[in-house]
Amino acid sequence: MILKDLGEFRLIDRIARHIKLSSRSIKGIGDDTAVLRYTEKKYLLFTCDMLIEGRHFLRTSGGYLIGKKSLSASISDIAAMGGEPRFFLVSLGVPASLNLKYVDCIYRGIRDVAKKFNVDLVGGDTVSSGNIIVNIALLGEVEKNKLVLRSGAKEGDEIFITGFIGGAAEGRHLTFSPRLKEARYLARNFKIHSMIDVSDGLVADLGHILGSSKLGAVIYERDIPISKSAKNFKSAIKEGEDFELVFTMSRGEGKRLTASWPFSTRLSKIGEVCRRRKGMSLVRKNGKKESMIPGGYTHF
Amino acid sequence: MILKDLGEFRLIDRIARHIKLSSRSIKGIGDDTAVLRYTEKKYLLFTCDMLIEGRHFLRTSGGYLIGKKSLSASISDIAAMGGEPRFFLVSLGVPASLNLKYVDCIYRGIRDVAKKFNVDLVGGDTVSSGNIIVNIALLGEVEKNKLVLRSGAKEGDEIFITGFIGGAAEGRHLTFSPRLKEARYLARNFKIHSMIDVSDGLVADLGHILGSSKLGAVIYERDIPISKSAKNFKSAIKEGEDFELVFTMSRGEGKRLTASWPFSTRLSKIGEVCRRRKGMSLVRKNGKKESMIPGGYTHF
Repeated sequence: MILKDLGEFRLIDRIARHIKLSSRSIKGIGDDTAVLRYTEKKYLLFTCDMLIEGRHFLRTSGGYLIGKKSLSASISDIAAMGGEPRFFLVSLGVPASLNLKYVDCIYRGIRDVAKKFNVDLVGGDTVSSGNIIVNIALLGEVEKNKLVLRSGAKEGDEIFITGFIGGAAEGRHLTFSPRLKEARYLARNFKIHSMIDVSDGLVADLGHILGSSKLGAVIYERDIPISKSAKNFKSAIKEGEDFELVFTMSRGEGKRLTASWPFSTRLSKIGEVCRRRKGMSLVRKNGKKESMIPGGYTHF
Repeated sequence: MILKDLGEFRLIDRIARHIKLSSRSIKGIGDDTAVLRYTEKKYLLFTCDMLIEGRHFLRTSGGYLIGKKSLSASISDIAAMGGEPRFFLVSLGVPASLNLKYVDCIYRGIRDVAKKFNVDLVGGDTVSSGNIIVNIALLGEVEKNKLVLRSGAKEGDEIFITGFIGGAAEGRHLTFSPRLKEARYLARNFKIHSMIDVSDGLVADLGHILGSSKLGAVIYERDIPISKSAKNFKSAIKEGEDFELVFTMSRGEGKRLTASWPFSTRLSKIGEVCRRRKGMSLVRKNGKKESMIPGGYTHF
């Protein structure tokens, strides 16, 4: 059997099955970041993202946007846990024939994001490679009582999303800004039951929350905020790399949240969490209910 | 200007120049790992290594040895700081057409090393890629008073090396075992002034210690332990990927160390640290002194 036949999510399940965590780890594979013991009041968050030329970006996008995207994607993962990013390493694979200016631009993109979000570049590795490869390994921290996992959704929860989805393939995947301040506001001021960032697509990532929480959901087409640059509704909810936050909370907390949301970033309630056996369904604008199979962008 | 003309070490210098560390970081770029604030008694160590098919291994070497090498190389970096490895992430790039068994072998190699050295695999990323790429991001810890940097060598120090060097290109780069127990024994029981692991080659890595410490050195051909599988003496001291420890300590500590070394791993005193203006020189078996220019394996 080759990887293409197995698929990315089943490969990750396969890897996870062999892993026994020691008591030093709170959460390993299966959330936006790993969660590790740290101080009395805080957990350490640990995540990595590998971006490869031709898959995640084209060389013609320019080094600056590539650098920006690589660190932003990892910060988005820390945000989705309710945490703050702190330190990161860059592993860079680049062709020996690449112009030095191009490499400088990659690092400038990375540094600009690092500065904006107050994260320290503390090291890395550089190797020669046929394609450009950028791997970010990011450490963050979160107060123990602010940690938000995928697995905490509850029946009756309302489902929210920040910003607009869709249009990643049309260029938004290079220009997004991670929702760190929104996530920290949520974690600090509300009881968030579950949260994830949209990297595989809304349907797939809400599916990750529901799978981890052993629940189902109904979402409403009329309430899902679609970016103007999206090709169409179906591609917008499946494509991935939106890096918006999807989260769930009780009806009461939801009411309090919508009444007090202080950001210009759009906030939308898009559905409700229900029992697992009801599965995941989408109510179309015409009122018809469609069953959704969680699936999104997969690498294989 | 292209990267090939600049060279790897000058690229790293160039990157490092733009970086301002916050007070949360003790040491950034310029040692085997980054050193970060952690608990009252310990520092956090943070390092990454990217291995690429065709540069660091061939597909015909088999997944198991590739997996083993990737984690072992990062553990070697933590060892060279005097620390203990704790948690790691694997970013894996693999062709969608790759056999699943091959990927299982990579993870089996990684897991076997993780088990041996008591490190937890806590997450990662999987992406499709033309070549096989393995990036390891590893976290470790070290007691504050056991931390060993490259920059602490002192004039008059004796220079030691573990094991044998050379023969990496002949296959040893895939089968080495990181010198973790030796490094921990050294850090716990002796005052080690400086330490590094030999990844770029003995001449280059001793050069890194001397550069950071602003000193020179004399090493003796007759005392340098060369592996039987090495092509010749010159290639052995320049090739890299030996993953042995090079360290310096005072003459008194050196005497105490050679009298009490408890491991079967060979320990060799290969030279002395001297003033910077004397540079780095090699005394050949015939007694002739040659000036050495620190240079080793470079990726560009």
